[in-house]
Amino acid sequence: MKVNSNFLKMPESYLFSEVAARIKAFREANPGKEVIRMDIGDVTLPLPSVVIEEMKQAAADLGESSTFIGYGPEQGHTFLREAIAATDYRSRGIDISETEIFISDGAKSDIGNVGDLFDVDNVIGLANPGYPVYFDANVIDGRKERVVILPCTQATDFKPQLPSEDMATIDVIYLCYPNNPTGVVLTREELQAWVDYAKAHDALIIFDSAYEAYISDENIPRSIYEIPGARKVAIEVRSFSKTAGFTGVRCGYTVVPEDLKKTDTDGNEVSLNKLWRRRQSTKFNGASYIVQRGACALYSPAGRKTIEENVGYYMRNACALRDALQAKGLIVYGGENSPYVWFKAPKGMTSWEAFDFLLEETGVSSTPGVGFGPEGEGWLRLTGFNSYEKTLYAISKINNICLI
Amino acid sequence: MKVNSNFLKMPESYLFSEVAARIKAFREANPGKEVIRMDIGDVTLPLPSVVIEEMKQAAADLGESSTFIGYGPEQGHTFLREAIAATDYRSRGIDISETEIFISDGAKSDIGNVGDLFDVDNVIGLANPGYPVYFDANVIDGRKERVVILPCTQATDFKPQLPSEDMATIDVIYLCYPNNPTGVVLTREELQAWVDYAKAHDALIIFDSAYEAYISDENIPRSIYEIPGARKVAIEVRSFSKTAGFTGVRCGYTVVPEDLKKTDTDGNEVSLNKLWRRRQSTKFNGASYIVQRGACALYSPAGRKTIEENVGYYMRNACALRDALQAKGLIVYGGENSPYVWFKAPKGMTSWEAFDFLLEETGVSSTPGVGFGPEGEGWLRLTGFNSYEKTLYAISKINNICLI
Repeated sequence: MKVNSNFLKMPESYLFSEVAARIKAFREANPGKEVIRMDIGDVTLPLPSVVIEEMKQAAADLGESSTFIGYGPEQGHTFLREAIAATDYRSRGIDISETEIFISDGAKSDIGNVGDLFDVDNVIGLANPGYPVYFDANVIDGRKERVVILPCTQATDFKPQLPSEDMATIDVIYLCYPNNPTGVVLTREELQAWVDYAKAHDALIIFDSAYEAYISDENIPRSIYEIPGARKVAIEVRSFSKTAGFTGVRCGYTVVPEDLKKTDTDGNEVSLNKLWRRRQSTKFNGASYIVQRGACALYSPAGRKTIEENVGYYMRNACALRDALQAKGLIVYGGENSPYVWFKAPKGMTSWEAFDFLLEETGVSSTPGVGFGPEGEGWLRLTGFNSYEKTLYAISKINNICLI
Repeated sequence: MKVNSNFLKMPESYLFSEVAARIKAFREANPGKEVIRMDIGDVTLPLPSVVIEEMKQAAADLGESSTFIGYGPEQGHTFLREAIAATDYRSRGIDISETEIFISDGAKSDIGNVGDLFDVDNVIGLANPGYPVYFDANVIDGRKERVVILPCTQATDFKPQLPSEDMATIDVIYLCYPNNPTGVVLTREELQAWVDYAKAHDALIIFDSAYEAYISDENIPRSIYEIPGARKVAIEVRSFSKTAGFTGVRCGYTVVPEDLKKTDTDGNEVSLNKLWRRRQSTKFNGASYIVQRGACALYSPAGRKTIEENVGYYMRNACALRDALQAKGLIVYGGENSPYVWFKAPKGMTSWEAFDFLLEETGVSSTPGVGFGPEGEGWLRLTGFNSYEKTLYAISKINNICLI
């Protein structure tokens, strides 16, 4: 038996373990000092009570013979798929039906598993810096040598540029907007250009819109399907994690339009909706019924209201961070339409130097941008996911030091 | 963009949709007659109250800031991994530690995803008839032409025979005991022979023990790790679905011992435990916290007791079915140490002929054995998962017809 050698092509990821190790060392060396975790991508607000009550009821229902439910459909229960189609799409004038929605145990699983649909020889376009799972999953799947990096730098406002004519055609493009880690968003025109590229080059877009709820600017598309032609070229992945506290509850969904057709290596036309259904029916058995009931409660008026409040709470943090860093003379992205704040390391430091400096001087822990890829070197990420009080405390500490 | 052509090598699975279509047609033609579903692999007993109370409490905990928990470890929470290691393994004298246990959203996901660890050129050995996911997942992964069928027929009591010297060496062998669909179990000596084969040929065994709780015979191993040497050659997959009503709740686990090392195609030695951790950290984000709390409650004395009662309930059904079919002069396997009853179609019928005959004459729906592979042709599966009352009613109907 031989092991999939592609795993060994994947560099060990030390980012968050290295962050944890440095925080631990700092704590040991500074027993009295508080560490303010502004590096975490995890949320802190508890679950909405409407979700909790619904999950309790769902659990109780499983305890009675008359309401017991076993295996559900692999693509998710109809009640949740209908709520998503109606609320997240049709109410915004976007043409998506419940047969195009697939519920899962979370966006990360879908992003990791979607590569099952691609031929191994496809060229993969990845914005850099970016969410490491896009790259790592493609390495596992044998496409390390097929990855084309789309550099996102300050010169392009951290937006990826369309491949030039002399570049290899990209077959699959991963786009994440609002972006993790840079907090950057794409305008309608910018996203249209990518849809047009995909149409012209028979490419597929994997659109990760895990942070779409943070968009308040009406000119910024929240779904790629707001862009004409996107139904024929894009899969969209969404999450309940960052808006409703579902990071540990586990639920997300993926949209695969019925218009989305590609060919296989023998030239047969294939529906990706049908293919993903087959993939999920084979290697997945549906998300938890209890969790799906809880997610459905988010589509009630009380659920909508809590999401709005949560988003408002975290955005207040992100805006405060953004304003404070700008006031200190730093170059800052994000913190608008996004819970992430991305800023240039002070005094020409590398990401890790700035991480240490900030931790030593203020007790604030950040995430080094280089952990999201080489193009992130010299930058840092802070998140709006801590409490408002801790965020203000972090800002007060940052205000006390010299950063330029 | 080209689609993974391997999907098109997978025959469309019509088994359960065809069963449903024939039942629907029968109902329309026979409006007064009851259909007794003995085909279902889904359970009918509700969740144990100890599990429900724990899940309600876990949901409530997520509603308070002080007890809110976000992302958990990808391999599962320590409380559950420790309970599993202590109860399912160490208390039975089996050397498995919590670092070797990976919690997931269910055995089907793990069985589907484990192929990520294998080189595409590995030869896969599959018992036939068998659980279709083993085959389908390997087809998706590009190994259709690498699958070697191990025929399980009446001549071998539906047990797979070791590959003969002139056969290709099998690199990965999927074994499921107690077996779905045949209900057959392997003795310690028979399982030892497979472990010895794997050791001698550097092969890997994927041991699916989803039905281990149904084993009452002390001479039948419940875990492959009861077999000396298995820690170096086997991955074991387990489920809470069939013992605790978790089919819709979604939780299972996979054991990857730290002794399990294989080489990659370049000759590097690789720990499969480390590899699976990396796979799950990349393409998965942990099972639901609420569900893990519920699963942990199964390890309390009340939880143990309910599992015993559930297993006893379903086994009473399976035994009754077995006895009834044997009394009718049919050849029957399973129904001992297994919730499945596997019997030869009456009067030389094919599986589908017998399905129709049984449905028409008695209203009992079965699963045609040919749906589990060509070697299942001429056989049928019944399950013990319906209620005792319905099972007795089905038996009374069967008793009224001539079957030989």
